[in-house]
Amino acid sequence: MNKIYDSIIVGAGPAGITAAIYLKRAELEVAVIEKEIPGGQVNKTSIVENYPGFKSITGPDLAEKFYEQIENLKIETIFSEVEEIIDDEIKTIKLKNGKELKTKSIILAIGRSPKRLESENSRTLEGKGISFCSLCDGALYKGEDVSIVGAGNSALEEAIYLSKICKSVTILCKTPDLRGEKVTVKEVKKIKNINIIYNSSVEKFNESNGVLESIEIKVNGKKDIIKTKACFIFIGYEPATNFLKPLEILDEKGYIMVDEFLRTKKKGIYAAGDVVKKDAFQIVTATSDGARAAITCTKDLSEMVEWN
Amino acid sequence: MNKIYDSIIVGAGPAGITAAIYLKRAELEVAVIEKEIPGGQVNKTSIVENYPGFKSITGPDLAEKFYEQIENLKIETIFSEVEEIIDDEIKTIKLKNGKELKTKSIILAIGRSPKRLESENSRTLEGKGISFCSLCDGALYKGEDVSIVGAGNSALEEAIYLSKICKSVTILCKTPDLRGEKVTVKEVKKIKNINIIYNSSVEKFNESNGVLESIEIKVNGKKDIIKTKACFIFIGYEPATNFLKPLEILDEKGYIMVDEFLRTKKKGIYAAGDVVKKDAFQIVTATSDGARAAITCTKDLSEMVEWN
Repeated sequence: MNKIYDSIIVGAGPAGITAAIYLKRAELEVAVIEKEIPGGQVNKTSIVENYPGFKSITGPDLAEKFYEQIENLKIETIFSEVEEIIDDEIKTIKLKNGKELKTKSIILAIGRSPKRLESENSRTLEGKGISFCSLCDGALYKGEDVSIVGAGNSALEEAIYLSKICKSVTILCKTPDLRGEKVTVKEVKKIKNINIIYNSSVEKFNESNGVLESIEIKVNGKKDIIKTKACFIFIGYEPATNFLKPLEILDEKGYIMVDEFLRTKKKGIYAAGDVVKKDAFQIVTATSDGARAAITCTKDLSEMVEWN
Repeated sequence: MNKIYDSIIVGAGPAGITAAIYLKRAELEVAVIEKEIPGGQVNKTSIVENYPGFKSITGPDLAEKFYEQIENLKIETIFSEVEEIIDDEIKTIKLKNGKELKTKSIILAIGRSPKRLESENSRTLEGKGISFCSLCDGALYKGEDVSIVGAGNSALEEAIYLSKICKSVTILCKTPDLRGEKVTVKEVKKIKNINIIYNSSVEKFNESNGVLESIEIKVNGKKDIIKTKACFIFIGYEPATNFLKPLEILDEKGYIMVDEFLRTKKKGIYAAGDVVKKDAFQIVTATSDGARAAITCTKDLSEMVEWN
């Protein structure tokens, strides 16, 4: 018979990793499933300066420190993607690698993914000039003119990062001003090779030989074209929770609905981190969620009938 | 005229420090008031192994890393204790050093303090054998027989720490078994120089030449006396919020009542960390609170009339 885990955590971002630490320290049989690289969105952040304990650290370095901690505790990490969850007293997790896992409880810490634009050629040019991660793809456009869509914190932080690598960075900002933290907005406006086009929207991405060549934009209603080798899109996030629809635990935007103890309405299924709708999507709120979900889960398990 | 701060944070523990980082990064005029050593209860923890980013770190080292971050951001830290807060549109904070501070908002992150026993001589022998911090005082009792009152996580972690320094550690446990995390309970029971007396309560502390000499206990109703050079008390915490009573923001146990955005019912006054009643009092929940209170405060300030 298959091994039955006490708890399986889906997602090895800050929430999932913290949940794993707490569950393992409670001596539970636990595993973490991760479909990409441990660290979640932290991995796609250039510099983190608001996580207490580290004055300034790159996202990937912090993600690595998080992951080292679960390795150190000898927590099993399974690199695959969840295809389906079958809810029962003992739950089944079907993975895309064909394997099935059995578990008494599940903590969903799958985070959010960047939103895409609906403009023409937006999908077809992904990876061919259109990117959602300057840290991953910025180096490909060293010395080139690139652009960014977005005006919030993540867009601005990526603009700063790209301005150091690229010849110029053009920010396409839908609103009349940038929307990030004041300190970041100020910094961006000081950088000479960052241009900001306010009140602009993307109409169409143009390609040449299969790669991005220019963007048709509208500025205050007037059409314009800007030449660009790459366009980095940072217009917000959405949770990738389609595979959870059968469980009926999602709100209308796809976030997982939980009570104050991070329980979903399905017994033994919890959620933590950015996949839960909240007022602040920060690393510290994710780690807090992870610990709290694990504490609730540990309590609930100790009250459950023991399975063999 | 006195300078008017945008926000003053009372308490430089994990919650207060995180709030300060977020407020300063929002370019607000901010100061932190700390009555002891920055780091709060983290300072009084021997080893931290459940804060993501650090596999294993001493409490004081983690506290120092937290504090370095607010120094690095050039955040003003005022070492004094708050005597009184006068609530008005511009709030006044009276310090025990005689100074007065003016501020538009206040974040109360004052944490909790260890509970005391009501047994005879419990107060008079504080610092004379009775202690609430093994990390601070343990070294004074190297090679001696010491005791601990308490059976939860903090009591057990301190027992492990003291067992390495002292000849023997006797745990006086009120309940029929220890109550900490399973992994910690298991570890404590394995250590040879730790004795556990279950179902025991402290009747009286006996002194000799002004210092602790023995403890009268009751075990299953029967009296006994144990010789001990020091007794470390870890029976829980209570918030030291007496000075806040006039604001009428406390619950019956002295915790500060807040809404889901960490606002108290007094406009411009927020609370974060262990001083707020919650299900998990952890470093990660405190940092999360700190960030969330700062984000709410920043939003509220930007909507306020500007003061000069």
